[in-house]
Amino acid sequence: MSPTAPLRYAQQHTDAFVGELETLLRIPSVSTDPDHAHDVQQAAQWLAEHFRSLGVDAEVWPTDGHPVVYATHHPHDDAPTILVYGHYDVQPPDPLDEWDHPPFEPTHVNGDLVARGSCDDKGQMFMHVKALESYLKSDTTPPVNLTFLIEGEEEIGSAHLPQVLDTYADRLDADLVLISDTSMLAEGQPTITYGLRGLAYLEVTLQGPNRDLHSGLYGGAVENPINALSQMLADLHDDDHRVTIPGFYDDVRPLTDEERTTIAGLPFDEDHWLDEIGLDTARTENGYSILEAISVRPTLDVNGIWGGYTGEGAKTVLPAAAHAKVSMRLVPNQTPEVIYDAFEQCLRERVPDTMTLTVKRLHGGQPVLVEPDQPIMQAAGAAMDQTFDRETVFVRHGGSIPIVAEFQQRLGLDSVLMGFGLESDAIHSPNEKFGLDRYAKGIETIIHYYPELAKRLA
Amino acid sequence: MSPTAPLRYAQQHTDAFVGELETLLRIPSVSTDPDHAHDVQQAAQWLAEHFRSLGVDAEVWPTDGHPVVYATHHPHDDAPTILVYGHYDVQPPDPLDEWDHPPFEPTHVNGDLVARGSCDDKGQMFMHVKALESYLKSDTTPPVNLTFLIEGEEEIGSAHLPQVLDTYADRLDADLVLISDTSMLAEGQPTITYGLRGLAYLEVTLQGPNRDLHSGLYGGAVENPINALSQMLADLHDDDHRVTIPGFYDDVRPLTDEERTTIAGLPFDEDHWLDEIGLDTARTENGYSILEAISVRPTLDVNGIWGGYTGEGAKTVLPAAAHAKVSMRLVPNQTPEVIYDAFEQCLRERVPDTMTLTVKRLHGGQPVLVEPDQPIMQAAGAAMDQTFDRETVFVRHGGSIPIVAEFQQRLGLDSVLMGFGLESDAIHSPNEKFGLDRYAKGIETIIHYYPELAKRLA
Repeated sequence: MSPTAPLRYAQQHTDAFVGELETLLRIPSVSTDPDHAHDVQQAAQWLAEHFRSLGVDAEVWPTDGHPVVYATHHPHDDAPTILVYGHYDVQPPDPLDEWDHPPFEPTHVNGDLVARGSCDDKGQMFMHVKALESYLKSDTTPPVNLTFLIEGEEEIGSAHLPQVLDTYADRLDADLVLISDTSMLAEGQPTITYGLRGLAYLEVTLQGPNRDLHSGLYGGAVENPINALSQMLADLHDDDHRVTIPGFYDDVRPLTDEERTTIAGLPFDEDHWLDEIGLDTARTENGYSILEAISVRPTLDVNGIWGGYTGEGAKTVLPAAAHAKVSMRLVPNQTPEVIYDAFEQCLRERVPDTMTLTVKRLHGGQPVLVEPDQPIMQAAGAAMDQTFDRETVFVRHGGSIPIVAEFQQRLGLDSVLMGFGLESDAIHSPNEKFGLDRYAKGIETIIHYYPELAKRLA
Repeated sequence: MSPTAPLRYAQQHTDAFVGELETLLRIPSVSTDPDHAHDVQQAAQWLAEHFRSLGVDAEVWPTDGHPVVYATHHPHDDAPTILVYGHYDVQPPDPLDEWDHPPFEPTHVNGDLVARGSCDDKGQMFMHVKALESYLKSDTTPPVNLTFLIEGEEEIGSAHLPQVLDTYADRLDADLVLISDTSMLAEGQPTITYGLRGLAYLEVTLQGPNRDLHSGLYGGAVENPINALSQMLADLHDDDHRVTIPGFYDDVRPLTDEERTTIAGLPFDEDHWLDEIGLDTARTENGYSILEAISVRPTLDVNGIWGGYTGEGAKTVLPAAAHAKVSMRLVPNQTPEVIYDAFEQCLRERVPDTMTLTVKRLHGGQPVLVEPDQPIMQAAGAAMDQTFDRETVFVRHGGSIPIVAEFQQRLGLDSVLMGFGLESDAIHSPNEKFGLDRYAKGIETIIHYYPELAKRLA
């Protein structure tokens, strides 16, 4: 069965689909910022109301943090059920002055929709809503049951979603989770992600003297917390760019020769990748290619650092404390628990005796692998093949969607990661964008996926 | 001649002297912050008006930055002339939340006056105004001529004062410069500073990719500017806490055994010094005592660092750039020009090939030595001896007053650094304070200084 009517409906309503997404993008639902709590709440309400306007049952589930939007359309007693997961919260827009257009005023630029969340993940999540609408409004019964679980805390670690999965397990019964929150390897290259890196994200504070001091009166005899923290952070890598934390690589499953050959054969253009971010050279862990380094190897990055005087001009202060945010990307079979402990112990051993260290664990997520030869994955490949007229590749990806591991552990469900982003979409950066053609193709792919899945799970 | 009438006047007007200082402290004349430009201007006008209210001629000299207040009282044709230098600008009050009272609402706490600028330098500068007032209002002709030069840019490097010295050299003719902007070694221990460290203060920016990146998508193959800057800053010291910049120590005049013996004999309580800043241990350059390290040895401190995400919560960003403010304290015969160049060359050689470095020279000052056996210094010792009833010590000090070198070079004048601060006054820190007893004793000392100087320079 080819879903002709839904596909035609989608083609005829492209402009309306974009306009509705723009309405959602105008709500600055920045989950990490308490000043935006009301906006996050408003985005959830708007989305639930939008489901209802399509005739889909929807509820807003409160949590101890930001709410979850739950919606269902179950026309069958015995068809496969897809649990669509996505998120309506977004990253902060900082640094604001690097945006060419205001981040929450969606703007069309050369066929792209530019706005915070246009790709990650409002745009990709909303494609699933529009795919279902295309069935319903073309009077076509989708050949599957659909449950939507759209959360508001993905960008801050999905702290309350595990509890939601436990509490509402019976209302989340499904055959798989379907997620669009990943990227394609290249423009026009359909891509399914079968592996994700995990995450261990911490904040460290190194405290020296009891107050900020004058660097002229005290400099020379008081160890400076910024100098010391710099040393501790610098020591976390060796000259081969390997992480020096004892035990860091112990649980890393070695790559097989076959895996490395597959990765080397993927259509990945190193020069283009470098050019796009303004660099001549990459810096990878010794012996690994760029694609290996950003997808199947673990890493450590300082995500933020601050301390002392950072305003305009000169202030001769010897600061009382220095701070950093540090995160590690994990690969199978590392776990955040083990890596948190190893990181903290390593740092504690290096704290100068004039200082005290505080470590806050901000959020963690398990790395994930989903075997690509399953029917739920093959159906996704077939749907993408049809839309893009090109063979889909299966890849492992460097990002983290911690909730994917939670679906596996708490509901026993594998996730199909069918993403339509591009590296150049600048998610988490100024001028985030999403191609309007990919938005349309994403909706088309999802319309194809329902019958492809139904066929294989019949 | 003992200045009995002025001393009595000062004792009888203590409360009024404090009240007037409080009025000046309420003006938030933060010179580094463009938002406070109007307040800086207002402080200058207030001070000039105050001079005039005492019958002292005063002018406000505009500069290309903040203005200078110039005032004169020259009752003699052939008496020695004192050029009093001070500053009415103050450091920023950050971090604001660590103040027990608002920084610009002077508060009395246990005999101290707590406010930004109470010690550095409004309080100490204003003692000179009140000393002259004590002569004038007690109908006593001071036995010296007095010129006041009070600037508004000391905390940002006195950028425009050298030009003022050149332009108005004939109106600044004097026998010495008298400055109260330094500290005493201990409560009740009169102290004259005969040496100051110089300064070379820079801001560095290390730029990597052309925009902030997602640490999941790029982490592992893009060298992180914060990681790299941390390494570069860490490498600036060796394990003996010596600065590793090639040539850094080349021009340092070695300490003689006699100098080290003198320093070792000074009344300096290491345990108290450490206790007061909440530390158990100091960290000095190998082989040097605390007092040597903070006064006669050169240093390097990171004064501020920032980059990436520094807000609440977690943002998985791989930042495009990292920034730091770094300053070095210099000792004779180092010069800021040579040290600026050495620092910049050293850093440039260590920049990773995926990054570019920008270095901004924010401000510099020459180190200073004034021989203590001169009449102008001995007169100051005698004035302090009388007020404190204890023998004055002569010390070298770790701070920088770059303008002191300018007075030497441009006007050929040595400076007498007669300070009444204490380390515990927390200048440049939250809860800056100045003891009301020291404010009174400072005024008394200055009243004594005029005749002691006149006697020796007769």
